[in-house]
Amino acid sequence: MRRASVTPDEFRAAGHGLIDWIAEYLETVGDRPVTTAIAPGEIRSRLPEHPPDEPETWSQVMTDVDEVIMDGVVHWQHPSFFAYFPANTSYASILGEVLSAGLGINAMSWVTSPAATELETLMLDWMQELLALPTAFRSDAPTGGGVIQGTASEASLVAILSARHRATDGHVNSVGDTTSLVAYMTSQAHSSLEKGLRIAGIGTDRIRIVDHDASFAMVPDALEAAIAADRAGGLVPFFVCSTHGTTSSMAFDPTPQIGEICARNDVWLHVDAAMSGIAALVPEHRWVNEGLEFADSYCTNPHKWMGVNFDCDLYWTRDRRSLLGALSILPEYLRSAAAEDNAAIDYRDWQIPLGRRFRALKLWFTIRLDGLGSFQEMIRRHIGLTQQLAMRIAGDQRFEILAPHPLNLICIAAHDDAATDALVEEINASGRALVTRTVLDGRSALRLSIGARTTTAVDSDRLWQLVGELSPPR
Amino acid sequence: MRRASVTPDEFRAAGHGLIDWIAEYLETVGDRPVTTAIAPGEIRSRLPEHPPDEPETWSQVMTDVDEVIMDGVVHWQHPSFFAYFPANTSYASILGEVLSAGLGINAMSWVTSPAATELETLMLDWMQELLALPTAFRSDAPTGGGVIQGTASEASLVAILSARHRATDGHVNSVGDTTSLVAYMTSQAHSSLEKGLRIAGIGTDRIRIVDHDASFAMVPDALEAAIAADRAGGLVPFFVCSTHGTTSSMAFDPTPQIGEICARNDVWLHVDAAMSGIAALVPEHRWVNEGLEFADSYCTNPHKWMGVNFDCDLYWTRDRRSLLGALSILPEYLRSAAAEDNAAIDYRDWQIPLGRRFRALKLWFTIRLDGLGSFQEMIRRHIGLTQQLAMRIAGDQRFEILAPHPLNLICIAAHDDAATDALVEEINASGRALVTRTVLDGRSALRLSIGARTTTAVDSDRLWQLVGELSPPR
Repeated sequence: MRRASVTPDEFRAAGHGLIDWIAEYLETVGDRPVTTAIAPGEIRSRLPEHPPDEPETWSQVMTDVDEVIMDGVVHWQHPSFFAYFPANTSYASILGEVLSAGLGINAMSWVTSPAATELETLMLDWMQELLALPTAFRSDAPTGGGVIQGTASEASLVAILSARHRATDGHVNSVGDTTSLVAYMTSQAHSSLEKGLRIAGIGTDRIRIVDHDASFAMVPDALEAAIAADRAGGLVPFFVCSTHGTTSSMAFDPTPQIGEICARNDVWLHVDAAMSGIAALVPEHRWVNEGLEFADSYCTNPHKWMGVNFDCDLYWTRDRRSLLGALSILPEYLRSAAAEDNAAIDYRDWQIPLGRRFRALKLWFTIRLDGLGSFQEMIRRHIGLTQQLAMRIAGDQRFEILAPHPLNLICIAAHDDAATDALVEEINASGRALVTRTVLDGRSALRLSIGARTTTAVDSDRLWQLVGELSPPR
Repeated sequence: MRRASVTPDEFRAAGHGLIDWIAEYLETVGDRPVTTAIAPGEIRSRLPEHPPDEPETWSQVMTDVDEVIMDGVVHWQHPSFFAYFPANTSYASILGEVLSAGLGINAMSWVTSPAATELETLMLDWMQELLALPTAFRSDAPTGGGVIQGTASEASLVAILSARHRATDGHVNSVGDTTSLVAYMTSQAHSSLEKGLRIAGIGTDRIRIVDHDASFAMVPDALEAAIAADRAGGLVPFFVCSTHGTTSSMAFDPTPQIGEICARNDVWLHVDAAMSGIAALVPEHRWVNEGLEFADSYCTNPHKWMGVNFDCDLYWTRDRRSLLGALSILPEYLRSAAAEDNAAIDYRDWQIPLGRRFRALKLWFTIRLDGLGSFQEMIRRHIGLTQQLAMRIAGDQRFEILAPHPLNLICIAAHDDAATDALVEEINASGRALVTRTVLDGRSALRLSIGARTTTAVDSDRLWQLVGELSPPR
């Protein structure tokens, strides 16, 4: 039993031990089953129902971490994690997160820690350069700028609110009437778009699901027709989401054509590249940026495919006036001279929450310590493994490839939905790999995302071997 | 120059050094000027405009942290930080954040790491018990439950969306019409309420600023009259925010009376206790919970006054059906058997973002390692120092106390606004303390929040001495 709160020396000892624990965990995570077979409620049932009366020791806490918590953890950093999306972390970014926690500052305004704001702005400009994005997104462009959001969901919502503000000339802030506004996307857009629209008062009656083609990409003519019909009906088309790398199948909507339609109709174009925009770090994959010259806003996630610890979504806009119009509110207790002179950015007005962590540190640490070359190597490796796997699947009569697979995600189906669903369940139950099930135009798909930092050919070979064991040749 | 990404052994060495750096920083932060005199743009100008071509070393990065970044940091953990709100961190919670970063999991759904969800639910139940909150908020109550939000701003928005859903029987999700909905709060409610309402499509035309009394607390009769007038006008009163500890002056709205009015009128009552609800950890301050039996939703922030590293806001509701109706969307790639059986909570549907960090760890670590007794000692110390200071001020003809100061915040004024404003500026320019300026009913106020973990009588004595030097007796 301890009697006082953690002392600096206890922190040093515990912290060193925890750093070593993390290094060992990440070095050996591949030896663990990738997922857990725990039943709902089981973890809680193994922990005390009531808080302790007296302080406990570090070793008591870490014993519970090892013996209870770890039994209920899915290992997102496992080399056989092929589920959801890349969520790779890196040692460099963990160090950045540790420093951010240690400093314990709030980066809500420039004045509450100028270094946090200025490093963040610089990081967004560095990333504009590394990704070869339009210069209109840069902080030194007339009305551009970027910010770190927690998640792409928040980026979507901020884009929707900016679009709503622009389409109503700001009147929405006083009258709150959103009933004539209409948004457009395909059924393949991420669920956060519908969620963001709903939050912003745009119901499903005002969301047009635009047709997609056989590759799950938006059909521009269908978009143009839908916009024209709504205009003719007296409604106000205000927001289009074009996805660069859809969640289910990594489809790319044709932004060059979509952008022209948006420009002609004065509709806000948001490009959601949360999962795949980071591919532009590699010159031969810069095609993922096609059409961004039309984008009013754009997001991509270093916390997905660049080894930066979640949460780190990058959001850029070429129209920060609409963003600020939508989100800034200035009570007396948040005023500062620097902000009123427009000499400084107050990022609280670029996001939903007020408070914010010093997240620029982990991006800065990762770029400096790991470096562009390491990201490029990883991205090329993941794409190479995916294409290798695609060739094997293409030559295998048990499976069909359901969608284009230009990067690191591939969707396949067995001879019928039941067989596909069973295969997904069996793979996941094996603990030897984790994959995701999705549905593409009504058909079950086994969806493989190859994106863990440590995944190599050994791991994709093992995955294919596992699939072979579970799906004997017909 | 380095050639490869950070290795496990480099991480061990750098991590140990960083843990030591943090311990030394927090032990000696009181020796630094509490704020920075840096000019806008100066930090950025001292950093390279372009990313490095090759990886750099840990010592290069930490040299820049020490020599550049730290010059632009405001020391929120400084014992003379009397600005904004308590933002104290603790060694225990830093360790929790480090483990969360090291595990690198995404806690969006139960199935994506059951331990993260179940520990979070348990922590909310522990906190319900420690704070003596209504049992209707517990996870085992028929329709209750709690969740960790990033910030109270997000909690406000989630409350508004839940209220909007309930008031429209869910129709808002399809028709998006928010134009008849009306919200109520005083001018002293936090800016995130107006921001949240605006986001949700409730413009300022539909926000009623209810009168407050001389203590800056809501006048219940004024609320009742405003609701009646709106009902008579065919509008739909849907949301009231009652604040327990307003940002400017720590006023407490009279929730018992407000709650009865809300109940009679079927209006959602959100109680925002972001800054001060944690005081209920101390039995003699449980009065801060008065009226919570009426609250449909409630939030308070361990990241403000409990030593849990930002971000950690606790949000409870007695009506999770409205919350889930407002926020859940289920695409195929997020389905899971556990969720469909209602056997497990998917916290992604309890918040704005989809992705989420494993934040329960830092709350668990802090409760177990530092313990209730340490929180109680700190809260009593802060309140004691504030009341001592209040007695000094009350006996000093240079100053007037502008509002009740039941806890750890006090607002004072000099003989006129210019003198008050000058005093705020001079205190902050000295680097010896940091305070906030606010305005109370048109009058400038010097606002002192006593809430840093390490603040003792020595520090409040120094503050008073500084005030004496800057404001000679008249």
